[in-house]
Amino acid sequence: MLMKNISAKTPVHKNQPSTLYEKVAGTLQAQIKNGVLRVGDRIPSVRALSKSQGVSVATILQSYMVLEQRGFIEASPKSGFYVRSIVENLPPQPQMRTLVPESATVRINDLVYEVIQAARDPSITQLGTSGPNPHHFPTKRLNSILRSVVRDFPHHSDRYDYPPGSEELRRQIARRSAKVDCLLTPSDLIITNGAIEALNLSLKAVAAPGDAIAVESPTYFCILQLLESMGMKAVEIPTDPVSGVNLVTLEEAIKRQNIRAGVFMANFNNPIGSLMPESTKEALVDLFAKRNIPIIEDDVNAELYHTGEQPKPLKAYDKKGLVLWCSSFTKTISPGFRVGWVAPGRYRESLEKLKFISSMASPGLTALVTARYLASGTYDRHLGPIRRAYAIQLERLQQVILKHFPKNTKVTRPKGGFLLWLEFSERFDSLKLYRKALSQKISILPGHLFSPSERYSNCIRLNCGNVWTDRIEIALGALGNLAKELSG
Amino acid sequence: MLMKNISAKTPVHKNQPSTLYEKVAGTLQAQIKNGVLRVGDRIPSVRALSKSQGVSVATILQSYMVLEQRGFIEASPKSGFYVRSIVENLPPQPQMRTLVPESATVRINDLVYEVIQAARDPSITQLGTSGPNPHHFPTKRLNSILRSVVRDFPHHSDRYDYPPGSEELRRQIARRSAKVDCLLTPSDLIITNGAIEALNLSLKAVAAPGDAIAVESPTYFCILQLLESMGMKAVEIPTDPVSGVNLVTLEEAIKRQNIRAGVFMANFNNPIGSLMPESTKEALVDLFAKRNIPIIEDDVNAELYHTGEQPKPLKAYDKKGLVLWCSSFTKTISPGFRVGWVAPGRYRESLEKLKFISSMASPGLTALVTARYLASGTYDRHLGPIRRAYAIQLERLQQVILKHFPKNTKVTRPKGGFLLWLEFSERFDSLKLYRKALSQKISILPGHLFSPSERYSNCIRLNCGNVWTDRIEIALGALGNLAKELSG
Repeated sequence: MLMKNISAKTPVHKNQPSTLYEKVAGTLQAQIKNGVLRVGDRIPSVRALSKSQGVSVATILQSYMVLEQRGFIEASPKSGFYVRSIVENLPPQPQMRTLVPESATVRINDLVYEVIQAARDPSITQLGTSGPNPHHFPTKRLNSILRSVVRDFPHHSDRYDYPPGSEELRRQIARRSAKVDCLLTPSDLIITNGAIEALNLSLKAVAAPGDAIAVESPTYFCILQLLESMGMKAVEIPTDPVSGVNLVTLEEAIKRQNIRAGVFMANFNNPIGSLMPESTKEALVDLFAKRNIPIIEDDVNAELYHTGEQPKPLKAYDKKGLVLWCSSFTKTISPGFRVGWVAPGRYRESLEKLKFISSMASPGLTALVTARYLASGTYDRHLGPIRRAYAIQLERLQQVILKHFPKNTKVTRPKGGFLLWLEFSERFDSLKLYRKALSQKISILPGHLFSPSERYSNCIRLNCGNVWTDRIEIALGALGNLAKELSG
Repeated sequence: MLMKNISAKTPVHKNQPSTLYEKVAGTLQAQIKNGVLRVGDRIPSVRALSKSQGVSVATILQSYMVLEQRGFIEASPKSGFYVRSIVENLPPQPQMRTLVPESATVRINDLVYEVIQAARDPSITQLGTSGPNPHHFPTKRLNSILRSVVRDFPHHSDRYDYPPGSEELRRQIARRSAKVDCLLTPSDLIITNGAIEALNLSLKAVAAPGDAIAVESPTYFCILQLLESMGMKAVEIPTDPVSGVNLVTLEEAIKRQNIRAGVFMANFNNPIGSLMPESTKEALVDLFAKRNIPIIEDDVNAELYHTGEQPKPLKAYDKKGLVLWCSSFTKTISPGFRVGWVAPGRYRESLEKLKFISSMASPGLTALVTARYLASGTYDRHLGPIRRAYAIQLERLQQVILKHFPKNTKVTRPKGGFLLWLEFSERFDSLKLYRKALSQKISILPGHLFSPSERYSNCIRLNCGNVWTDRIEIALGALGNLAKELSG
């Protein structure tokens, strides 16, 4: 609070001639530019710098204000100033591709499996898979709730938690849904084993083998795997990092092909992190509603927005119960608990049956602990630092790419989540980069995984969900060099 | 031990003229026959009865020996004598039906769903679903292990337990597999969300929509539901309560139809509780091995044998890696934990991939607690009383049926598990009985659920896994009366 009070009283004089505070700002600015201070680093407190430099607190504060205005640093309530990225230096974002949406049989399983196997080898530096940072989970609190559940409800393990699953958890999810304009009741929800099972059951509920499913392009490989395992066909609709899915192509595809359902991640999609504008969301839902085609929405990243408020899901625009809204707490509370959910709209009954058939019930204990954690009211406070951490790590990653990667590399600038999508020159072979990197004990995700038609063979997905260490920075440097070699 | 020592020293004199001990035995026998003492009831201790009747300990003991020889009571080590059923009075068992194995499309989902919904209404007395008795789970011990896991391994929740799942648990399962002649290693196993997911993934791994799958007839409705949800066809092979699956019919079906896989419960199958003789098991596995057809084995009831030793699974006879052995701990350790497993033989890799696709990972915490419980060495001691309890409850149920149900009712006499299968006269409509019973707040499972071709419309499945209460006994009486009415 001290920092805020002072700053409120201290006006920043624009265009003032170079003075002492300009000198201090200049020194810090140089340190940021040459990498002594990196994105996310905390810069010295006003008082500490004032003391060490023998300069007044007001002067230091003014120099920080200048740096903040120039976008080099930003204030965080209660904890001081941090280095921000220099946005104007960032490489351009990749753009939406024009592509004719043809239905394609999916065959990416073997490559995915190979990549995932590599991701489990601790000797390999993970730059591709979205293994979450263990520090970002409320482990202590969960353990304390676990202990209290064991004490207060000792018979938790001796019964089935039949579908739709824990009412306590469904009540908490329903309560939170109001924040994003979805007024769900507990009976609108079904608890699942993570979002993957929710997506799996949703696809089964609305489509059959051989059916054509509209997906974003590029799209999350787990969705493609699900389609592959069920013998469904993918119709790829281009998605832009900034503007989201291309509605014109989508409308054409719906007209020309017998699209049975669509799978979309409107909020910070995987892999490109695009946030669909609200108007596009509304138009998308309307487009499907007109023809009574269901939409399966994967919304697992929505709560990982970097600034502002949680974006609305497609479900918020669903008037006909056609949107099956899927999400989980695996990226925000616990990956190990495998607690996911789906609000299946008009498909509730068939989804509940499918859940029963496919795994009979979900574990009751982890659902109950998650419910009590949500009820404790600390969830939102816990999410704040995670959002900030991912925002900083993404910027830091972008800076490193700027420094080490080929000049023409394009990089996304997502406003949520922790994934980055890189596009190299047209003839670049990211599978070659993947194999070369793996031989140097570095794992990335080649673009091939995100399309059934090998459209993204010059792209890769990086993730910055892990703890940022020197090992990661060194690996990124090595990866950049490999990319330069392969770019010829 | 006292009881045993004395009995060893006290010879029973057959054909001895009616004496004091015969009188005591006669009184007790009458009490058992008219239901004052029921199956499973503990009869007075030798010393107590000796004291209350003013008769010597030796006389009482001799009368108990006589009753034991006649099959009315049995001794339990350390805890006295209990009432046994009067085996010779039991109704006959249903017999295997002759049926031509034709492949049938499965459509039983809606009825199953209706029945399961009814099973969740606490105002309804559950005589059909196999909801387990909460007293039969090591709840206290599990909670104490849970607390120790939280303490010793506080980061259990912040990571994915990717397939094949908890190594600690796989090691424990492998260790136990040696007892039934299966020398598995941890790498032969994959952890699943209960046995249902294991069966689900196994079917997916070996067959595709449209394929014909050989199943026992009658067969567990969850297996039929799985086939239905995957668009596979069921080829019903008759199974006898005593001799198990009919190998002749099975061989014919394999010759005539393109059978892609078989699903069998060799040990105490659901619903009829048959235990396949070892020679039949071996012949069955050989039959499939000759043609390289995989067998999916559901072995969830094997550990619930009533006397003797755990029967071997089909897997024990598998030389070619064609048996996918599925089981779980949901009936013996915790239904809520949803911990199951599969030893998929030569299909290991594709099964692991399918597990990843369908739910990415299983919860790590419940797997770890189960592993530590198994490692603690108390599992087998815990199973003893459960086996005994189910044996007693089955006998008690048989007695009640003898008393209240139509005279020509046939009843199975399973040697494991807690399910009973009843066959009424040929034209009996068990769906009518189901609906009439439900209107009286009693739930049973109509035979229709256990065949895709409505073969068992004059049968029902009862379960005695629940706690035996007056409410259950009254409901059974009412059910018997309804059955009599409908038998007209």
